[in-house]
Amino acid sequence: MASALRLDPDRFFPPDKAVRDIARELFAHVEKLPIISPHGHTDPAWFATDAPFQDAASLFLWPDHYVLRMLYSQGIGFDRLGVTGGKPATKDRRAAWTLFAENYYLFRGTPSRAWLDHAFATVFGMEVRLERATADLYYDTIGEKLAKPEFRPRALFKRFNIEALATTEGATDLLAHHARIKSEWGGRVITTFRPDGVVNPEADGFAANVDLLGELTMENTATWKGYLKALQNRRTFFREHGGATATDHGHPTPFTADLTPRECQGLLDRALKGELAAGEAELFRGQMLTEMALMSCEDGMTMQIHPGSWRNHNPALQAAYGPDRGADIPMRVSYVDSLKALLDRVGNRSDLTIILFTLDESNYARELAPLAGHYPCLRLGPPWWFHDSPEGMMRFRRQTTETAGFYNTVGFNDDTRAFLSIPARHNLARRIDCAYLAELVATHRLDETEAVEVAMDLAYRLPKAAYKL
Amino acid sequence: MASALRLDPDRFFPPDKAVRDIARELFAHVEKLPIISPHGHTDPAWFATDAPFQDAASLFLWPDHYVLRMLYSQGIGFDRLGVTGGKPATKDRRAAWTLFAENYYLFRGTPSRAWLDHAFATVFGMEVRLERATADLYYDTIGEKLAKPEFRPRALFKRFNIEALATTEGATDLLAHHARIKSEWGGRVITTFRPDGVVNPEADGFAANVDLLGELTMENTATWKGYLKALQNRRTFFREHGGATATDHGHPTPFTADLTPRECQGLLDRALKGELAAGEAELFRGQMLTEMALMSCEDGMTMQIHPGSWRNHNPALQAAYGPDRGADIPMRVSYVDSLKALLDRVGNRSDLTIILFTLDESNYARELAPLAGHYPCLRLGPPWWFHDSPEGMMRFRRQTTETAGFYNTVGFNDDTRAFLSIPARHNLARRIDCAYLAELVATHRLDETEAVEVAMDLAYRLPKAAYKL
Amino acid sequence: MASALRLDPDRFFPPDKAVRDIARELFAHVEKLPIISPHGHTDPAWFATDAPFQDAASLFLWPDHYVLRMLYSQGIGFDRLGVTGGKPATKDRRAAWTLFAENYYLFRGTPSRAWLDHAFATVFGMEVRLERATADLYYDTIGEKLAKPEFRPRALFKRFNIEALATTEGATDLLAHHARIKSEWGGRVITTFRPDGVVNPEADGFAANVDLLGELTMENTATWKGYLKALQNRRTFFREHGGATATDHGHPTPFTADLTPRECQGLLDRALKGELAAGEAELFRGQMLTEMALMSCEDGMTMQIHPGSWRNHNPALQAAYGPDRGADIPMRVSYVDSLKALLDRVGNRSDLTIILFTLDESNYARELAPLAGHYPCLRLGPPWWFHDSPEGMMRFRRQTTETAGFYNTVGFNDDTRAFLSIPARHNLARRIDCAYLAELVATHRLDETEAVEVAMDLAYRLPKAAYKL
Repeated sequence: MASALRLDPDRFFPPDKAVRDIARELFAHVEKLPIISPHGHTDPAWFATDAPFQDAASLFLWPDHYVLRMLYSQGIGFDRLGVTGGKPATKDRRAAWTLFAENYYLFRGTPSRAWLDHAFATVFGMEVRLERATADLYYDTIGEKLAKPEFRPRALFKRFNIEALATTEGATDLLAHHARIKSEWGGRVITTFRPDGVVNPEADGFAANVDLLGELTMENTATWKGYLKALQNRRTFFREHGGATATDHGHPTPFTADLTPRECQGLLDRALKGELAAGEAELFRGQMLTEMALMSCEDGMTMQIHPGSWRNHNPALQAAYGPDRGADIPMRVSYVDSLKALLDRVGNRSDLTIILFTLDESNYARELAPLAGHYPCLRLGPPWWFHDSPEGMMRFRRQTTETAGFYNTVGFNDDTRAFLSIPARHNLARRIDCAYLAELVATHRLDETEAVEVAMDLAYRLPKAAYKL
Repeated sequence: MASALRLDPDRFFPPDKAVRDIARELFAHVEKLPIISPHGHTDPAWFATDAPFQDAASLFLWPDHYVLRMLYSQGIGFDRLGVTGGKPATKDRRAAWTLFAENYYLFRGTPSRAWLDHAFATVFGMEVRLERATADLYYDTIGEKLAKPEFRPRALFKRFNIEALATTEGATDLLAHHARIKSEWGGRVITTFRPDGVVNPEADGFAANVDLLGELTMENTATWKGYLKALQNRRTFFREHGGATATDHGHPTPFTADLTPRECQGLLDRALKGELAAGEAELFRGQMLTEMALMSCEDGMTMQIHPGSWRNHNPALQAAYGPDRGADIPMRVSYVDSLKALLDRVGNRSDLTIILFTLDESNYARELAPLAGHYPCLRLGPPWWFHDSPEGMMRFRRQTTETAGFYNTVGFNDDTRAFLSIPARHNLARRIDCAYLAELVATHRLDETEAVEVAMDLAYRLPKAAYKL
Repeated sequence: MASALRLDPDRFFPPDKAVRDIARELFAHVEKLPIISPHGHTDPAWFATDAPFQDAASLFLWPDHYVLRMLYSQGIGFDRLGVTGGKPATKDRRAAWTLFAENYYLFRGTPSRAWLDHAFATVFGMEVRLERATADLYYDTIGEKLAKPEFRPRALFKRFNIEALATTEGATDLLAHHARIKSEWGGRVITTFRPDGVVNPEADGFAANVDLLGELTMENTATWKGYLKALQNRRTFFREHGGATATDHGHPTPFTADLTPRECQGLLDRALKGELAAGEAELFRGQMLTEMALMSCEDGMTMQIHPGSWRNHNPALQAAYGPDRGADIPMRVSYVDSLKALLDRVGNRSDLTIILFTLDESNYARELAPLAGHYPCLRLGPPWWFHDSPEGMMRFRRQTTETAGFYNTVGFNDDTRAFLSIPARHNLARRIDCAYLAELVATHRLDETEAVEVAMDLAYRLPKAAYKL
C-alpha cells in the first residue's frame, strides 16, 4: 500500500508544545500574505505565451538541478533520466519519471523533498507519496491536470497569490516576453538586470557580447566611457521596458576594485582582445561591481551580489550535457577585504541598497552581519541555494540576527527556476522565520506582539522595501 | 498604551519544561555570586572622581558602539544622534535620545536589547518599554536618578556586587586614577597592561610612544635590550601601582615570531624610523607577542590575545567622527600556524596562562579547542564582542566543550565600556551557561551535582584562577 | 559517598518528550544490530595472540591520546602519569590511575567521559563513578576481570557483537597477525592499506621505505612505473592476505595533482634523493592520491582520505615522549579546488568510492555536501576525531543532510585505538542519528517508517555497502 502524503499544519515548527503554539500563532499572520518574489530565474516566456506545461518529467525533473545532482551523485546517469546534451530527450518521459520515483527516497531530509511534496499535494492534490508504485498515478494525474486552463502559468500565478515576480535577464536581452506580458496581461512579472555576460571577461563570448551591447545602445563600447554609457543605457531600458528595480551580479568572488579611468581603459582594451594577464579578469570584474554600485547611486536600482560559486566544476559533464546540471560547488570567500574598494566609494550612502548573498556560511557571523550592521548601503540577502533549507535558514537567523538585527535583512528570495516550487518555498521560509521568532518569544527575548510585527516585515514589508516593489 | 517591560525570571532558559527546571535550579546557585570582571574598558576616572553620570544620552547612547553601529546601518546619521567628531555634541540630548527610542525596535533579537532592558529595569526601575511614547519618561527618570548619590559610580559598583573590575590602560599611562581609587576608596578596580601603542609599529605615533616609554623608564628604547627592559619596567609599574594581574594584546592577527636579537634590533631600528618593509610590521608584532609571553613567564602576568578585528574599516566615518564608532569588522584568522613560534618557546609551561579570544568562530572546534585541549599554557577566553550573545555563547560551549572541556575555559569577560551593562552581561552569561549545562543534565551527559559545580566554577572560580584575582 | 554511575536508557536523546519517544522507538530498531567497524586503529596482535589485557592504566589511560591530551593541558605531566619516552613506564600503574581518577572531572561534557563510563559500566559492571575515592576499586576490579578468559580480546570481540573490524597497516607490513587471525580464529578482522610511509616524501625514512617496498615486491621502485607496480602489488597482497577492502590516506591537505609520467619520474627521483624543492612534497602526495584513485578503479578498493591534521604540533613533547601523544591540531583546508585534479580524472566513475573526512567543519555545508551531492564517486565519512562527539555528529547531520542526503554518507567509523570504546562509540553514534531522525519526524520532515529505514541504513547497511563488507 502506498504511503500517505500529508502536509502537517505544524510542519517545520519546533516540537516543544509551548514554542509550537507560538509559531503557529505567528504563522497565522503571514501564511496568506501575498508572495513577493524579488529574485529568481523563472522563464518569462511562460507568462508571455501562457502555454500549458507539458508533463511531470519536463516540469519537475529535467529543469531542477537540485534533483538532477542528487540522482547523478548516486550513479544514475543523465541518459537514463532522459537528459541529453543541453536539452531533454523527447521520448521515454514516463520511464524517466519512474526512475525518479523509484529513487525519491534519496531526497529524505532535503528541502527538495519538502518543496516537491508541497507542490504535489497543494497544486495537484496528490494524497500518496511518490514512489515506484505511485509513479504512473503521478505521471497521469499531473499530465491530465496540466492540460486544463487552470494549470496554465498565468492562472497558477494568480492562484499562488504572487504580487510581484522578478525574472533575470542578461544585459543584451530585448525583453520581448516582458513587453508581451505588460501589454497582454496584468500580472506583475518584472525583469532584473544581470550584466555578467558583458562585465566578466571570462564569460563565453565576452567580446561579442560587448559588441552587441554597443550596437544595441549605439555607444562605442571599445572606450571605457562608451562602455559605461552603454551599460547605463541598458539599465534604463530594463527599468523602462521590463519594470526592473534591481540588478544582479554572479561573480566568482565578492572582490571589488577602484581604479583610475586610464587603468580601466587598459583593462578593457586587453579584455576585448582576450589578452588579460593572470588576475586581470578578477580586477575587471571587481571594477565593474564598483561601477554598478555607482550607477545604482544614480538610477536607484537595488544591487544584488551573488558570489562564490565555482560554476560547472565538472568539465566532462558540462561537455556532454551542458552547463547548469548541478555541478556548481561553493568556494570559501571573504567580504571584509573584498568589498573594501566599493565600500570606500559608496559604503556610507543610505540611498543605495546592496544586498549581499553567500554560499560560505562561515561569513554570516564573522563578516556579513558586522558589515550589514554598520554600512548603511548593505543588507543581507536570505540563505542562498544550498542553504535555502530549514537548517540553513535557521543558521542564518541564529548567526546574523544578534549583530545585524532583522532590519538589515530583506525577507525571502526563492531564487528558483521551478515555478511550482514558489509557494512551497515561501511557505517554508515563513515557517522557519516563525519558528525562530517563536523561540525568541518562548525564551523571553521578544514579546509576542513584536514577533508578529517582525514576521510580517520579513514576509512582506522588507522585500518590498529592499527591492522598491 | 506603552508596552510593559518585564524581565522574566526564566528568560534565556530552554523552553522545554524539564530542561528549564534544571536551568533554573542551576542558576539559583550562581545568580547572586559576586561579579568578577577581569577584562573590560570602563573608565577608571568614574571610580576615581565618583562624579555623577549626566543623562540618558551620554550614558547609554553615545559611548555604546553596538548601539551607534546599528542606528548608523539604518541610515541614521551620527549628527542627528548628537555624535560629532570624536566627541558627543552638548546640545539636543533629549532629541538624540528620542531618535534612539523611536528606533529601539531595530535592536529586536540583539544582545544590546537584552543588556539595555536589564539596566533600564533593574537600575532605573523602568516598567514600560523604550519607544517613542516613553522617550521622555525615560529621559527624565534616568536624569533624575543619576543626580542622586546612590547612582554615583562607586555606589553602583557596590550595588552591582562587583568583587573585582579590571580596566585597560596603555603602556605609558600613569595610572593616576588607579592611585586615587586605591588611596580614597576600597573598591577593587585594577588596571590591565595593554602595550599595543608601543609594540605595534603601525599604531598612531609609534615612535613617539616608544620615546615616551624610554623617558618614563629611563631606558634607551632605541636598543632592543633597552626597549624590552622598558616594557618589563612598565609591567612592574602596572602591577605595583595599578594592581594589574594581566596584559592584553589587540593585534590584527594571532601571528607570532621568534627571531634572533640581531633581527629584532634591525626591525626596531626600521620601525622607529618608519621604514619597515611590507610584512615587517606584522613580524614585529609577532615577535612582541612572544616577548610578552616570555615576560609573563617571569612576572606571572596572565596574557590575553584579542586578534582579528579590522579596526576602523570605514575611513570616511573615522575622518569625520573618530575611531571606535562601530566600524570594526572581524577577519578570518588561523591559530594553529600563527601561534607556532610562541608555543614552541613557551607552550609547555604550566605556570603561564595565555587566554585566546577570537572573532572567527570557525576556529572554535577546528583550532582553538584542540590547542587549549593540549597546551598547558593555553586557555580559551569567552565569546568576544559580536559573539557575546545568547546564540554566540551557546555556539562557543557546543563547539569547544567536547574537545577542551570546561576547565580550559576561563568564565566570562564583559569587555565593556558601558558600566551599567555589567550586571546585565554577567547575568546573561550565567543564564546561558546554565542553559547549556541543563541540556547536558537533561540528556544524561552530566549529573546535576556536577553541573552545579561547573556552573559555580564558570561564574566565579575559573575567572579568579585564570586572572589570579 | 561515591556518586552513582548509571547509563540512562534515554541518554543523548532530545529532552522534549514527544521527540524522545520517537528517538527511543527508532533506537530500538538499531541498538542490537551487529557492529560494522570499517576503519580504526586497534592492534591486530590482540586478536592474533588473544593475550589478556593487563590493567586499568595500560588499557584505558596510556594508549588514549584523548585522555592524555586533556590531562596534559591542565599541567599534569606525562611522567606523573607513568608515560615515558615512547613507552609507558612499568611501575606505579596504580598511582597513575589514581591521578587520572582524581582528575576525571576534567572530562565533564566530553565524549571521552561518555565512552569511558560506557565501558566501565557495561564491560566491568562498575556502579560508582570514577573519582579519587573509587580509584582503587576501579583498579582492582578491572585488574581482576581482565585476568579472566571472558575478558580476552577474542571473547570481547564476540561479546561486542562485531561483525567486521578493520585495522590499519602500512604498505610494507607483512600482515603476520592477520594471517594468524585467519588461520586460528573465525573473527573477521581485516586490514586496511595505508601507504602514507611510501607515498609521502616527508614521512620518516621515506627513501628506505620505498626501498623496502621494492624488495618486497621485486619491482624497481626507482622508476615511476616500477614504483606504481610495487604499490599495486602490495594492494593485492593486502586484499589477499589481510582481507582488505579499503585504502586510507592521511595527508596534510586534500590536494591532488595530475602530472605527466615524466614529471612524476622527476619528482620521484628528487624525492628519493631528498632533494625536493619547496612545494614538491605536496605535489608528490597530490599525485599519489590521484594514482591511488586510479588503482581503486582497477582493483575496486574503497579509498578513504583523512586530511588536515597538523601532526605532532609540539616538537618538545614529541622529542620527549614520541609521536601521537595528543598534540595533533586540525588545520583549515579546502576541497573544491584541492580535489579538482583527481575529480577531473575519475569523478564521474560510479564504480569507485572515495570517502572524504574532514577536521574543518566549515567545509560540511560549503564544499563537502555539495561535492558528495554531485560526484558519483564521492561519499562523506562520519565526523572524525575531535568531531566524533554528540554535538559534532549533530552538526554533521544538520550541515550535510539537506544537500547530500543520507545516502551519500557511509554510517559510522569508530576510528579508535581503544578496543573497549568500540561498543560505546557505536552506541553513541546510533543514538545521535536516532536523535536527529526523531527531530525530522517530530517536525514532519520525514515519516516514522522512513526514519526506521534510514536509521538501519546508517547503522548497518551503508557502511557494509561503502566498504564492500
